[in-house]
Amino acid sequence: MTYQQLVDFIREQKSFLCVGLDTDLRKVPQHLLSHENPIFDFNRAIIDATAPFSVAFKPNLAFYETYGVQGWQAFEETVRYIRTHYPRHFIIADAKRGDIGNTSQMYARAFFEDLDVDALTVAPYMGGDSVEPFLGYENKWVVLLALTSNRGSADFQLITDADGAPLYERVLKTSQSWADKEQMMYVVGATQGAKFADIRRLVPHHFLLVPGVGAQGGSLQEVCRYGLTPDCGLLVNSSRAIIYADASPSFAEAAAAAARAVQEQMEQVLSEAHII
Amino acid sequence: MTYQQLVDFIREQKSFLCVGLDTDLRKVPQHLLSHENPIFDFNRAIIDATAPFSVAFKPNLAFYETYGVQGWQAFEETVRYIRTHYPRHFIIADAKRGDIGNTSQMYARAFFEDLDVDALTVAPYMGGDSVEPFLGYENKWVVLLALTSNRGSADFQLITDADGAPLYERVLKTSQSWADKEQMMYVVGATQGAKFADIRRLVPHHFLLVPGVGAQGGSLQEVCRYGLTPDCGLLVNSSRAIIYADASPSFAEAAAAAARAVQEQMEQVLSEAHII
Repeated sequence: MTYQQLVDFIREQKSFLCVGLDTDLRKVPQHLLSHENPIFDFNRAIIDATAPFSVAFKPNLAFYETYGVQGWQAFEETVRYIRTHYPRHFIIADAKRGDIGNTSQMYARAFFEDLDVDALTVAPYMGGDSVEPFLGYENKWVVLLALTSNRGSADFQLITDADGAPLYERVLKTSQSWADKEQMMYVVGATQGAKFADIRRLVPHHFLLVPGVGAQGGSLQEVCRYGLTPDCGLLVNSSRAIIYADASPSFAEAAAAAARAVQEQMEQVLSEAHII
Repeated sequence: MTYQQLVDFIREQKSFLCVGLDTDLRKVPQHLLSHENPIFDFNRAIIDATAPFSVAFKPNLAFYETYGVQGWQAFEETVRYIRTHYPRHFIIADAKRGDIGNTSQMYARAFFEDLDVDALTVAPYMGGDSVEPFLGYENKWVVLLALTSNRGSADFQLITDADGAPLYERVLKTSQSWADKEQMMYVVGATQGAKFADIRRLVPHHFLLVPGVGAQGGSLQEVCRYGLTPDCGLLVNSSRAIIYADASPSFAEAAAAAARAVQEQMEQVLSEAHII
């Protein structure tokens, strides 16, 4: 998907919601456990329920790998289902990969050729040549970790260099020579509040993928105050607050209602900012 | 596996070789492609051939994920095969994972409960709470990226803070409060040469997992000069130089010969250092 296609879809959907598919069999409605393929059946119901209110889906690989071969099968089926039924939705494989060149190349083949997702989250620690193999695919994206939403983000991401610049700023600056806003996004946690203003000075036009609204305590209003661009420039992810809104057999309706509530807030934000 | 069991096994084998199972169907002997399960069949032959000369195996997840469900199946079979036939070998899943707490917890379950590998490589960028979930398993290890072997390692790992300490040193220092030498190792690329001396000042007793000897150009002698501890303290990985030593039907014999050659150098090193 191109940058412009994503922006157009956000305007049409009046939403910049990304639904995180962190599917955990200990948390899904228990009646699904008797199904032959409970992970995929849960995902399909959540996808159908939330697609009208969202622009992206983000399956989190950890939740699939933990079920081994069955988990991978469910992950592949999920990607195929979205591709077939919601072809305009942006699919982010949240895998936080990154390795030496020949290894990153193998990951790139797995996610961009065999699976045909739009984007992959990548960790920057190993530097440029660990990220570049993911950038060799037209209209495929890298979502690079910059400033994450967890407590431990302070351990290394906030270490300042001799000029006082924290590591995450160095990541933002250096990585701009690897790709522009057409192929690169950054992960910035919603819990990072006012740092969004600093980040927008460094990357005024790139999309930011923002986890941490909801269960992790970040505020949509605060993220938007500093993070919006004239093209929106934000994908705000919500996982648990939407997909586990309810554990009864009517879980999908509850997920739809939770997604719709977020979408309505987003529509207001987009409207007030004259983006729609 | 405990630290002491690993040290004992190194002394018995007179080797600190880790064989990297970076199995790529474009590089394996082509007669295997007609097999039903070429990845596993290749791995089994390589494992049988190199086990007498090694102490560890390191399957690299990227090479399995690229084949989707079949790849995961082959990965699981490979781990089971090693566990069953070579129970004293240390198994490192080279996955370079690391995510927020609940997600790292899912990865930990996948690799340490369901698959029963000994160790997992983890990227430090997201900080302490992204690594801690992997440390809740007795006799299971985290192999944390410190200073990697690739060119891009200079992009961020060598950024110095206000006191002149590079990021990788901060990673080494900070992470020592998370776990001791019984549960933590560090990745330090063989291409980093004299930096091993600095690293040993910071982590005098921890095992280092050293990739980059062979195809990437690192020198075993140099690594050992600075990296050895009284308990050896090194696992030196070789992947391509061993597993692709030959592409004919006698590939396994060639791999054995390549592994034996490395083991003989290692035996000499261990003997000269009075470790055996």
